[in-house]
Amino acid sequence: MPKDQAIHDINAKFYEAFEALDIRRMEAVWLREDYIQCVHPGWSLLAGWDAVMDSWRRIFENTEQMRFRLTDVRVKVIGTLAWVTLYENLVSSVQGEGNSAVILTTNIFEEVGDGWRMVHHHGSPVMIPETEPTPTVH
Amino acid sequence: MPKDQAIHDINAKFYEAFEALDIRRMEAVWLREDYIQCVHPGWSLLAGWDAVMDSWRRIFENTEQMRFRLTDVRVKVIGTLAWVTLYENLVSSVQGEGNSAVILTTNIFEEVGDGWRMVHHHGSPVMIPETEPTPTVH
Repeated sequence: MPKDQAIHDINAKFYEAFEALDIRRMEAVWLREDYIQCVHPGWSLLAGWDAVMDSWRRIFENTEQMRFRLTDVRVKVIGTLAWVTLYENLVSSVQGEGNSAVILTTNIFEEVGDGWRMVHHHGSPVMIPETEPTPTVH
Repeated sequence: MPKDQAIHDINAKFYEAFEALDIRRMEAVWLREDYIQCVHPGWSLLAGWDAVMDSWRRIFENTEQMRFRLTDVRVKVIGTLAWVTLYENLVSSVQGEGNSAVILTTNIFEEVGDGWRMVHHHGSPVMIPETEPTPTVH
């Protein structure tokens, strides 16, 4: 399988696990290493297997429904690492409350013996429309 | 020079160029490739040399002062790629207005012939204190 396709596949599996709210499928996407990291939109950094998986468990427990439409998916592979950027156009129901949001995400994947695994996920809210970028604090 | 040290150095150069509001120094940090990407906090994705450098030029033109204190800097190197996570504790003056903010950032660097260069910068605002992570839309 071409590398790009393998990365599209594991990236898709991440969002399928998220939509399924299934911790076993989410665990299967990630590399079981201390150096994995996860940034949920607006949260602080979570580092290491236990902290990252605890966060998914907590999110899944409080979420009734989660649906993603991924747009502008870009993949870059160099050696045994790849990073993917995309917009998560999501509609969710969290603790009985409906939400919709656009999240801009960087996912990093590492190639290991039997395929690719996620090692880093950084999602953040998009607050400024694409057509009118203006200076912010940064 | 050990790889970790080289990555700490180029990462520091990025923030020095930012504090200096110096587009030449900022250009020297980045790899001149179409696949470089930059996400300023809350902005949409910027891709490619021209879009990324235009954004820095625009930010520098509108910023009088920018000071960073970097905390929890973590470096992971695999082959010719490295990613760095950190908190940017920043104080700035933008268009005459003082701001302070905590930005959580993922920087990706690539090793090329003569050293390491930035290929990806994703900064996002921290809105939830570390001690009380609660479920959000994601």
